Amino acid sequence: MTTNSPSSISSLDTPALLVDIRKVERNATTMAQRCHQMGVSLRPHMKTHKTIEAAEIMTNGTKCHIVVSTLAEAEFYASHGFDDVLFAQPLTQEKVPRCAQLVAQLEEFHVMIDSTSGLDAISSRRVPGKQWSVFIKVDCGYGRAGVSHDSADGVQLVQYLVSTPGVKFAGLYAHCGDSYNADSPEEVKAIGHRTAQNILAFAAKLKKEGIECPTVSIGSTPTCSQPADTMAQLTEVHPGNYIFYDVQQSLLGSCQLEDIAVQVMTRVIGHYPVNNHLLVDCGWTALSLHSLGQLPTGFGIIDGHPELKLSSMTQEVGKVHAVEGTLDFDKYPIGTVLKILPYHACATACMHPKYYVHSGEAIVAVWKPCRGW
Amino acid sequence: MTTNSPSSISSLDTPALLVDIRKVERNATTMAQRCHQMGVSLRPHMKTHKTIEAAEIMTNGTKCHIVVSTLAEAEFYASHGFDDVLFAQPLTQEKVPRCAQLVAQLEEFHVMIDSTSGLDAISSRRVPGKQWSVFIKVDCGYGRAGVSHDSADGVQLVQYLVSTPGVKFAGLYAHCGDSYNADSPEEVKAIGHRTAQNILAFAAKLKKEGIECPTVSIGSTPTCSQPADTMAQLTEVHPGNYIFYDVQQSLLGSCQLEDIAVQVMTRVIGHYPVNNHLLVDCGWTALSLHSLGQLPTGFGIIDGHPELKLSSMTQEVGKVHAVEGTLDFDKYPIGTVLKILPYHACATACMHPKYYVHSGEAIVAVWKPCRGW
Repeated sequence: MTTNSPSSISSLDTPALLVDIRKVERNATTMAQRCHQMGVSLRPHMKTHKTIEAAEIMTNGTKCHIVVSTLAEAEFYASHGFDDVLFAQPLTQEKVPRCAQLVAQLEEFHVMIDSTSGLDAISSRRVPGKQWSVFIKVDCGYGRAGVSHDSADGVQLVQYLVSTPGVKFAGLYAHCGDSYNADSPEEVKAIGHRTAQNILAFAAKLKKEGIECPTVSIGSTPTCSQPADTMAQLTEVHPGNYIFYDVQQSLLGSCQLEDIAVQVMTRVIGHYPVNNHLLVDCGWTALSLHSLGQLPTGFGIIDGHPELKLSSMTQEVGKVHAVEGTLDFDKYPIGTVLKILPYHACATACMHPKYYVHSGEAIVAVWKPCRGW
Repeated sequence: MTTNSPSSISSLDTPALLVDIRKVERNATTMAQRCHQMGVSLRPHMKTHKTIEAAEIMTNGTKCHIVVSTLAEAEFYASHGFDDVLFAQPLTQEKVPRCAQLVAQLEEFHVMIDSTSGLDAISSRRVPGKQWSVFIKVDCGYGRAGVSHDSADGVQLVQYLVSTPGVKFAGLYAHCGDSYNADSPEEVKAIGHRTAQNILAFAAKLKKEGIECPTVSIGSTPTCSQPADTMAQLTEVHPGNYIFYDVQQSLLGSCQLEDIAVQVMTRVIGHYPVNNHLLVDCGWTALSLHSLGQLPTGFGIIDGHPELKLSSMTQEVGKVHAVEGTLDFDKYPIGTVLKILPYHACATACMHPKYYVHSGEAIVAVWKPCRGW
């Protein structure tokens, strides 16, 4: 930071994304300890923050063993000394050249496929002195992508993979995104259990066919924050959002509101008693429209102000009403700082070119995330 | 562009934001001609694209007379030789120092207020050799911000303004954002009429008090694309979205689908017949969640494919179903390029660090927008 940079939260221009470094570190430690106790490896997902600094914290300084959601992230981390990187999207032909570069560059770069066409695309592009390390994406009930966990197709695809020259089988990978639709912590746990059971059954079937599965990995922050016992039989989990957490995760039982490490700081910029609302300089460019405003407090939770509702946003401003009755404008003079806990931290962080990292009131760093694809 | 940059659309990595330069130029020309015919000045809003290049097109090369939605934009344009810039958000104390810099730097930098506290914040910060040029934000029925058009408060605020040393009255400014809720082109026109009528009545009231109003400005792309006759009595309009247009604007009657100058290019990356969907590499990081998926075709319109529905998105991928019945997967092999017309171009453009500008199939430029605040 230059000497001109703000040194305390209160001097920041708004809107601004605040990242509480102590909560980040605590969330990282808690998840790492939980995985250690379960006896499974943690391969943290970078998609929520996309920064070097949070990645170092999540990998406990090893800079190894991560998942990314875009090739831009893969290249960003590779260029900053990270290794053992998994690009977790079904790979297709046109992304193979950039992946081949990463295979050549890193000790371990893993790709993911869920079809023979993906495998053919890879195997037609040999990387001198290297093998392609390939995960099979498995659908364990979420229904978005992957081979069905109980299909003959899945087994055949792995058989095809292990017989393909220049390619090695890295393991099975499933995302339990259905955990986000759970109605209770019990249901989250049940989904974690079912996902683990399904992918382990797939691995067992492969074993019967003589194929050892080096890694069996499932993930989602809800299931990894409240893990089912079955998950201890996995080799790896890959949650990501837990580094920040958010209101959605608190509703799923993944965390408490006080664990949420990110806030959008905004200021009151107008009073409109005739409409019973005040205006803040936080629009959807700073918070995103995730949650669709369906929370009792609107699009997020205004920290320390359960009486306020962020009821709508346009590009650069938001309207705040009272949750009930008439707003007491005297309580929120123009210039008042409000801090919004986001519903979906991945979506909110994604809107910010800089994160202001603080410890208490002091700004201790500015992180710059990777953007684009 | 370097020699390694893609030269044609088909070689672009996906997702990618495509900007059709011919449509951009046509949309700019049409709006400029319409304003010329009405006899009102066009002060284009930059918020939709936030690029130097589109700003040059919208200002017909004059690099003058623009509106911006953030101070970051104001500074971006100022540093690239633009002048006569209006920062269109109710100004508050903490943004005054950066505004004072812009007042010193530019021939004309205008701010906007809607309260005495905003005026006090400005007047306490004199800029040597300069006056603050101040617009009054007026609420003509939209109900978001501004002094009420028919209130005594509004008149009093302008009286206070003209009596304040170091400050000059630039005019009245209203955003007819309510036009986005219109059910028909007729209603859009009625809102344009009502907004113009209300702000003109406010100006007339000021005149009676002996205060000349240099500029009377209203704007929104719907009302400026289908202007009410009354709007010819204004001095200025300030639409912005028209440079790109989008599906929302087409539904409001502002444009035809073929006028939409932006598309998100994506590719089919997976076939899942068991769930009757295909996967594309466009998630909400590339399109935004605007429209809430409520279009018959989901979150956008897949150009040339009225039979397809972008039914859901997660961070980096989207699910595409048939609008009706079963998907014919053979028609969309893996790797197939699809181009999505966004529901809300401002929100979609906002997600992209680069815009790929094309003329036909050829990429002719890469534009880099301003981000942050």
